[in-house]
Amino acid sequence: MAKPVQIEVWNPNGKYRVVSTKSMPGTRWINLLIQQDCRLEICTEKKTILSVDDILALIGDKCDGVIGQLTEDWGETLFSALKKAGGTAFSNMAVGYNNVDVDAATKHGIAVGNTPGVLTETTAELAASLSLSAARRIVEADEFMRGGLYEGWLPHLFVGNLLKGQTVGVIGAGRIGSAYARMMVEGFKMNLIYYDLYQATRLEKFVTAYGQFLKASGEQPVTWKRAQSMEEVLQNADVISLHPILDKTTYHLVNKERLAMMKKEAILVNCSRGPVVDEVALVEHLKENPMFRVALDVFEDEPYMKPGLADMKNAIVVPHIASASKWTREGMATLAALNVLGKIKRYPIWSDPNRVEPFLNENSSPPAACPSIVNSKALGLPVSKL
Amino acid sequence: MAKPVQIEVWNPNGKYRVVSTKSMPGTRWINLLIQQDCRLEICTEKKTILSVDDILALIGDKCDGVIGQLTEDWGETLFSALKKAGGTAFSNMAVGYNNVDVDAATKHGIAVGNTPGVLTETTAELAASLSLSAARRIVEADEFMRGGLYEGWLPHLFVGNLLKGQTVGVIGAGRIGSAYARMMVEGFKMNLIYYDLYQATRLEKFVTAYGQFLKASGEQPVTWKRAQSMEEVLQNADVISLHPILDKTTYHLVNKERLAMMKKEAILVNCSRGPVVDEVALVEHLKENPMFRVALDVFEDEPYMKPGLADMKNAIVVPHIASASKWTREGMATLAALNVLGKIKRYPIWSDPNRVEPFLNENSSPPAACPSIVNSKALGLPVSKL
Repeated sequence: MAKPVQIEVWNPNGKYRVVSTKSMPGTRWINLLIQQDCRLEICTEKKTILSVDDILALIGDKCDGVIGQLTEDWGETLFSALKKAGGTAFSNMAVGYNNVDVDAATKHGIAVGNTPGVLTETTAELAASLSLSAARRIVEADEFMRGGLYEGWLPHLFVGNLLKGQTVGVIGAGRIGSAYARMMVEGFKMNLIYYDLYQATRLEKFVTAYGQFLKASGEQPVTWKRAQSMEEVLQNADVISLHPILDKTTYHLVNKERLAMMKKEAILVNCSRGPVVDEVALVEHLKENPMFRVALDVFEDEPYMKPGLADMKNAIVVPHIASASKWTREGMATLAALNVLGKIKRYPIWSDPNRVEPFLNENSSPPAACPSIVNSKALGLPVSKL
Repeated sequence: MAKPVQIEVWNPNGKYRVVSTKSMPGTRWINLLIQQDCRLEICTEKKTILSVDDILALIGDKCDGVIGQLTEDWGETLFSALKKAGGTAFSNMAVGYNNVDVDAATKHGIAVGNTPGVLTETTAELAASLSLSAARRIVEADEFMRGGLYEGWLPHLFVGNLLKGQTVGVIGAGRIGSAYARMMVEGFKMNLIYYDLYQATRLEKFVTAYGQFLKASGEQPVTWKRAQSMEEVLQNADVISLHPILDKTTYHLVNKERLAMMKKEAILVNCSRGPVVDEVALVEHLKENPMFRVALDVFEDEPYMKPGLADMKNAIVVPHIASASKWTREGMATLAALNVLGKIKRYPIWSDPNRVEPFLNENSSPPAACPSIVNSKALGLPVSKL
């Protein structure tokens, strides 16, 4: 097969051939691989999305492991090709792996890695950043200024929200939702209302203690409430951020009826998954309610937007960058590389994939373990005793 | 003189004629005036900036007081016309009054009001909003998405900063600077370094106590440092927000040399006054350092930008909207109206212009006092005993 893709080669004499389908941020992941006897080949093709054929060409007939991306289709074809090439390891550079047929990988004895534990704060900070940008209409205001439309200070120009004392609503108070809630409560003295099937005990305790701390400092305390229903959050909050998992029960969770329950000047933020919001209904709602604002990191038909969304001044739209901080992306690259390296070296599996700090310390060698392999049990791989 | 301006009249039978040169947010300020026997005339002319002649026409030959704006030139001409028309009161709808010749007003026995005490949190929240937008490149990312350029998730797309654990630098730790510092420290667990001629004792105490509170909750504490020099802040901080007053010593405080001291990937925020930053030097610095980011609410030649600034992708520019929250703008309108009303009614002057909460409570009548008159001493006006 002719090679349709361009590659960059590190440590040409390495014993193990590892392929990365994309150039990834930072250099630590590269150094970790080449110092451990890997010949690293990084695909530098300009194409945004590689096809299955592109990746087949990259795997070739001798390949020990591949670091891939969420945008690739890892199923029977690729895993059987990787097996034939002698490979035993694949890792997504992502915490999710809905692009991977894990059963097919397991059938061929191939470990599937992912990169949990480094996205929480960066994702929550994006939700906070979108909340604040929407509250103060930063994108609209920048466009106005850059377009030369500003003639002088005006009492009515881009009037937005003062967050202090308003209510932040969180739907889905897991790790990311809780981290976001704390940013808004502590940073902006917002009161919290949340909805989750499970009680967010840790979050509740923290906000209670923080409220007491504020009171002891002579300030107005903040409050929290666990809502009985999602509707209660939608009706009462000024800023609402969505952090549920995507499944049948959360598909179009925010639809026409639920949008109508929200305050006319509310702000809705979605950094979870696109289909959680009915985007067609959202566009209609934005048109009818000019002071309702939305900020989206994800879309129903990603990478596309529903018709009309791109024209709305009361929308902020960013291209799925929730995990796009240098620290997180370099951490993801490191974890993905160490998953593949660890499997090639026959290291055991790290016992807690959510506590991966030891792998991220730039000043020490990483543990001799695979940080996170999602089919480790199915493959019967040993767990690290560390 | 023919009237060149359009007006809207409230309570045509009011005894006192009060003119507002602009329509202002909310309706409370209108109700307060018309219920107290004022004939209120609001200029509804579409012009952004009214000229001295426009305002002379508005004053006419019988006028008790005027509510004006920062964009107007209130000097000898207008104050002598207002005196001749029987007026005794003027209030800016602003905390600043560098558009007002206070001596001229005093000479004509006219009180000059301003609107302090309602801008702190809203301004600090804009600085936080700009910091977060710059950290996550929201404006660039929105333009990319809206332009249809997004083809799919990429490891390098719009990678920005994780604020957690980074250092926030504050230059000028007065009321606004301190409020901003707390937002970034508490909200995002940033460490603080600040420079101010005066020790920010209250801020230092709070951050110390907050660090202890975090530690007691089993978390990493945050730290603070008062820098010996402004340069120390510029060299060490990842995000820097400027909150000095503008005078000879702070003109071009951030110049070419000082920009060169900053980290290559630092973020600079200015919500203070335009001339604090050498904007020509800034444009050069942005061109040479693509990952250096700036977010500006104010400009040297407002409403204009220096050549090249509007083309920079690593800049966010908004049209002087630091105080643009509904709560603040309605509060400013209320305070400006009550300054004028109070002087007409011969009410005494409120004793602490920075504690104006009693005037802002929508559920009770405001105190019988002028909230803030800047030349009250020069005019020998009595102080409220309340």
